[in-house]
Amino acid sequence: MLMKDFLANQAREAKDAARIMAGVTTEMKNAALMAMADAILARQDEIIAVNAEDVKAALEKGTRKNMIDRLTLNPARIESMAEGLHQTAALPDPIGHEDFHVTRPNGLKIRRVRVPFGVVGIIYEARPNVTVDAVALCIKSSNACLLRGGSEAIRTNKVLTDILIEAATSKGIPEHAIEFVAITDRDAVVAMCRLRKLVDVIIPRGGAGLITRVVEHATVPVIETGTGVCHIYVDKAANFDIALPVTLTAKISRPSVCNAMETLLVHKDIAADFLPKISKLMIENKVELRGDELSRKICPEMEIATEEDWATEYSDLILSVKVVNSLEDAIAHINKYNTEHSDAIITDDKDAAEKFQKLVDAAAVYVNTSTRFTDGFEFGFGAEIGISTQKLHARGPMGLEALTTMKYLVEGYGQTR
Amino acid sequence: MLMKDFLANQAREAKDAARIMAGVTTEMKNAALMAMADAILARQDEIIAVNAEDVKAALEKGTRKNMIDRLTLNPARIESMAEGLHQTAALPDPIGHEDFHVTRPNGLKIRRVRVPFGVVGIIYEARPNVTVDAVALCIKSSNACLLRGGSEAIRTNKVLTDILIEAATSKGIPEHAIEFVAITDRDAVVAMCRLRKLVDVIIPRGGAGLITRVVEHATVPVIETGTGVCHIYVDKAANFDIALPVTLTAKISRPSVCNAMETLLVHKDIAADFLPKISKLMIENKVELRGDELSRKICPEMEIATEEDWATEYSDLILSVKVVNSLEDAIAHINKYNTEHSDAIITDDKDAAEKFQKLVDAAAVYVNTSTRFTDGFEFGFGAEIGISTQKLHARGPMGLEALTTMKYLVEGYGQTR
Repeated sequence: MLMKDFLANQAREAKDAARIMAGVTTEMKNAALMAMADAILARQDEIIAVNAEDVKAALEKGTRKNMIDRLTLNPARIESMAEGLHQTAALPDPIGHEDFHVTRPNGLKIRRVRVPFGVVGIIYEARPNVTVDAVALCIKSSNACLLRGGSEAIRTNKVLTDILIEAATSKGIPEHAIEFVAITDRDAVVAMCRLRKLVDVIIPRGGAGLITRVVEHATVPVIETGTGVCHIYVDKAANFDIALPVTLTAKISRPSVCNAMETLLVHKDIAADFLPKISKLMIENKVELRGDELSRKICPEMEIATEEDWATEYSDLILSVKVVNSLEDAIAHINKYNTEHSDAIITDDKDAAEKFQKLVDAAAVYVNTSTRFTDGFEFGFGAEIGISTQKLHARGPMGLEALTTMKYLVEGYGQTR
Repeated sequence: MLMKDFLANQAREAKDAARIMAGVTTEMKNAALMAMADAILARQDEIIAVNAEDVKAALEKGTRKNMIDRLTLNPARIESMAEGLHQTAALPDPIGHEDFHVTRPNGLKIRRVRVPFGVVGIIYEARPNVTVDAVALCIKSSNACLLRGGSEAIRTNKVLTDILIEAATSKGIPEHAIEFVAITDRDAVVAMCRLRKLVDVIIPRGGAGLITRVVEHATVPVIETGTGVCHIYVDKAANFDIALPVTLTAKISRPSVCNAMETLLVHKDIAADFLPKISKLMIENKVELRGDELSRKICPEMEIATEEDWATEYSDLILSVKVVNSLEDAIAHINKYNTEHSDAIITDDKDAAEKFQKLVDAAAVYVNTSTRFTDGFEFGFGAEIGISTQKLHARGPMGLEALTTMKYLVEGYGQTR
């Protein structure tokens, strides 16, 4: 069978399962999530043994160290997966919630309720925990899922999904509600994005390369996630007691994540005072600084920032720095170079803060705190399937509700038009 | 200049205007809408004269009669455009509305507010009234718009947008908030759908061919609209006093629109009684009937329905008819062939109605009334930019809110992570 047809068959089975999922109860879903948690804990030795084969193969291929780290499972990580399943079970059910109703002059009763998408396609990279997270969130939102993880983790993902399916079906969830795409061929990603009418939405989770590939080829609607060129602007009215720790930690606490700061903008009136202080702190913490001309006049220890730097998500201990003439210049720079993810202003000037929040075009705009808070758990959503950097459907951290759509239910008695 | 670069320049100007639009007040927007209405009324002779050139050119090209009708303007139609502008001015401003807020344990105050998309690209066909509608809705929702109408209406659309821009700028709206793409080259549609970072969303309004072309090539997020293969299922517990007028009017009142019924499903237990009655009414109203085998046993006057018929949006006085064995069979047929637009059940059985509404996968699911009500005005939204047949962002009739996205505004004082 052709790869494309094989995938379409899998999606068709998921679609049939999705029709059944539209009718499952909250109790069934929660029981399935708890059974899945029990199963991965009970069978952790088996999971770890299979995972070791993936890790061995990756090492033999000379895979980078941080990728190996993401791939590797141990009892603590399996415990954390099980904990995630428990947490998802404890969340309120997003399905069936009525968010709008009206009775029209002609007597029609119109209600709008949250319903599942149907089949959610998730395309991700090496981390096996994404498999468990994605299944948990899709099942809790009554969706079927079609999962395509990175080829490095294929054995681990296969054993995980087998265990999850067995546990879920024991509580009445249809078998094909969880479909794992075991095709390592990269063309499978493209084929999956084009399964119109079978897959309802595609969520790519990974680097810019994966996202671009999906967006370029998809005919199924896509929710783009993840890339973050995040800015912090230190205004002339900034309190340095806030500006220094916020900017420092926004860079160093976890430089590999999408909500870390990549560019620091500083108002010219305070640059001579602020820049040497932050430069010293950053360098002490092994951050490489790349400044524009004005920054380098004050801090000659900085490397030269090029045009390319302003648009780069380093995901590393590197920071670009620029001195700006005004709040307006800061906003213009951000709107030119950001990825509409998260940007912040540090200021005690309420008007400046308000203008910044109004005019900066991003999913989350912060005042006097760090872009690092753009995260489903930090926002109190209790779960996160990703951070949307597009404006359709969901923007910013996506919780369970982002995995639902709505439906109008209209009742009449003989009205015609 | 290359067509692609020319388009990108237009979009860049629109994007700059969108930054300014993010700060305009409700009063400015409403004043602009009223000024636009005044202007098109005051200059209707000019508009009609230019429109006559488009109509003449279309006639010379041998354009179909119904297309000519859609293209032609007269004082009544211009009056109706002005009325649409007034109505949009009277609607509540969707921007700035706060729909979620929370204070987190660490003191972060998180608010979610409605904001404009930025630049909305609208690709449509011959009807010049879409130009005015689209401008009205985009301005009211603080978006800039990039409009690409059908080539048949190019002179009319050009004069209309010139007049609208002049009126809007007189009230402080930035000039480039309304950008009309005067390139008739069909490749302009493809180029426009690929202006990532310049255009925030693309809404195609038109036939299946246009929509497919946009979906196939777009890298900008798309809201699909319009195609409707709508079903009415007459259950065994149907009241014929409702079933007969609802199904008749759903087919004949305006067969060309997307919410008209295309397929009638009838439960086998009542088929021998119901089908002859509805067949007679339909034939009296010049509807061509195409039935499956069981329908044709009861009503031999029907033509033979083929597999293709079940998936066809006739947009004409043609109806496909099928006898089904059960409610479940009706639901399965609908989920296989519908375009997730609108479907209805006629029944006095509450359980059957509930099951149908739960399991049919469509934007609007009706009980005892007609699919023809899927319409922004009928739902009380006061305006409509189209009917979404996808599940992302908006589903069903899209009012002003569908032209907005949201933004998280987060305030702290020195919190780090």
